[in-house]
Amino acid sequence: MYARRVPKLWNQTIEAHRREVREAILDTTAALVGEHGLRQVTMSQIAERTGIGRATLYKYFTDVEAILVAWHTRHVTAHLEHLAEARDQAKTPAERLEAVLTACAHIAYEVAHQHHATELTALLHRDEHVAHARQQLHELIRDVLADAAEDGQIRNDYPPDELATYCRNALNAAGTLASEAAIGRLVTLTLTALRPGQMDPR
Amino acid sequence: MYARRVPKLWNQTIEAHRREVREAILDTTAALVGEHGLRQVTMSQIAERTGIGRATLYKYFTDVEAILVAWHTRHVTAHLEHLAEARDQAKTPAERLEAVLTACAHIAYEVAHQHHATELTALLHRDEHVAHARQQLHELIRDVLADAAEDGQIRNDYPPDELATYCRNALNAAGTLASEAAIGRLVTLTLTALRPGQMDPR
Repeated sequence: MYARRVPKLWNQTIEAHRREVREAILDTTAALVGEHGLRQVTMSQIAERTGIGRATLYKYFTDVEAILVAWHTRHVTAHLEHLAEARDQAKTPAERLEAVLTACAHIAYEVAHQHHATELTALLHRDEHVAHARQQLHELIRDVLADAAEDGQIRNDYPPDELATYCRNALNAAGTLASEAAIGRLVTLTLTALRPGQMDPR
Repeated sequence: MYARRVPKLWNQTIEAHRREVREAILDTTAALVGEHGLRQVTMSQIAERTGIGRATLYKYFTDVEAILVAWHTRHVTAHLEHLAEARDQAKTPAERLEAVLTACAHIAYEVAHQHHATELTALLHRDEHVAHARQQLHELIRDVLADAAEDGQIRNDYPPDELATYCRNALNAAGTLASEAAIGRLVTLTLTALRPGQMDPR
C-alpha cells in the first residue's frame, strides 16, 4: 500500500501541519464570534480570515457549528487538564478536594466572563461531544469526593454523584462574584456542607 | 374628554379582554416554540394560531422576542409569587428560609425540564426585564437569609448577597436530580453550609 511507504517523519510533519491549521481555524472562529456574535459568522469569513481556501476549510469541518463544538471541546479539555493538575499536585484526599473545588470556582469565573458563553452553551448543550466532556468533568470531581469520603475527610451519607452535582452548581456562583476573596469564601462555604458528622439527610 | 364618559364597567371589560388576548398570545407562542423550536416561530404563525389578525398581534407586541420576554417574565413572576407564598406561610425565620430554599429547588427542577429553557435563557439573558425579575428573586432570598442571620439561625460572617448567590446556584443542581428525595437532600446539604458556628471564611 502506498501509505506504508510514506516516511514517518513526513507523516509527522503533515500531522503537525494539520493540527496547526485546525487550531488556527478554532482561534479565528473564536475571534469572529467575539466580533460579530455567534450566529453571524460564516464559513467564508472563517476561511478568509484563517488564510485558507473554502475547500480546505470544508476538509476540516462541515459547518460553523462543528467548529464551535471543537472550540468548546478544546476549552473543556483544557479545564479537565487544569483540574487533573490541581488534583495531582495536592497530597491528601482532603487537599485534593479543596484544590479541585478551588480550580472549579476559577473556571466558573472565567467561563462566565467569556463573550457569548451563555449563548454558546445553549447552542451546544445537546451536542454529544460536549455532553461527554461535561460528564468527564463531573466524574473527576465525583472521584475526588469519593476518595475524601473513604478517607473520612468528608461525609459519607450522600451519594458522591449528588455531592458532585451540588459542588459544580454551588461553585458556578463564582461567575457572578466580584473578587478573589469572595471566590475563596464560596469554596469554603461549599466545603462546609461536606464535613463529616453533619446532620443526616432527610 | 370622550374617555371620561366611557362607563367604568365597559373599561373593565376591555381591560379583561386585552388581558385575555395577551395571555392567549403567550400560551400560543409557548406551544409553537415547543413544536418548532425557538427560532422557527413567526409572528404570522402566532397570529393565525391565536385566532387574531396580524395587525392586532402587532398592537400587542412588536416582535417574537418581545413575546418571549413577556412569556419569560410571566414565568419568573409566578416563581416570585410562589416563593413569597412559601415564605409567608412559614412562622420563624429559620422555617421561612427552609421553605424558600425548598421552593427554589423545585422551581430549578421545573425550569430545567421545560422545553427550550436553556436556549430561552441564552436568548433573553441580556434583556433588562428578565434581569430585573432575576434581581427580585435574588433579593427575596437574600432578605430571608438576612432575617435568619439576624435571628441567629444561620451564620452571620458572610454578606447575605454572597449567601443568596451560593443558595441560588447550589439549588440549581435540582435541575439534574432524579427524585423528590434527592431534591430534599440537596436542600438539607445547601442549608448545612449556612449553620451558625461554622469555621470562619478565609
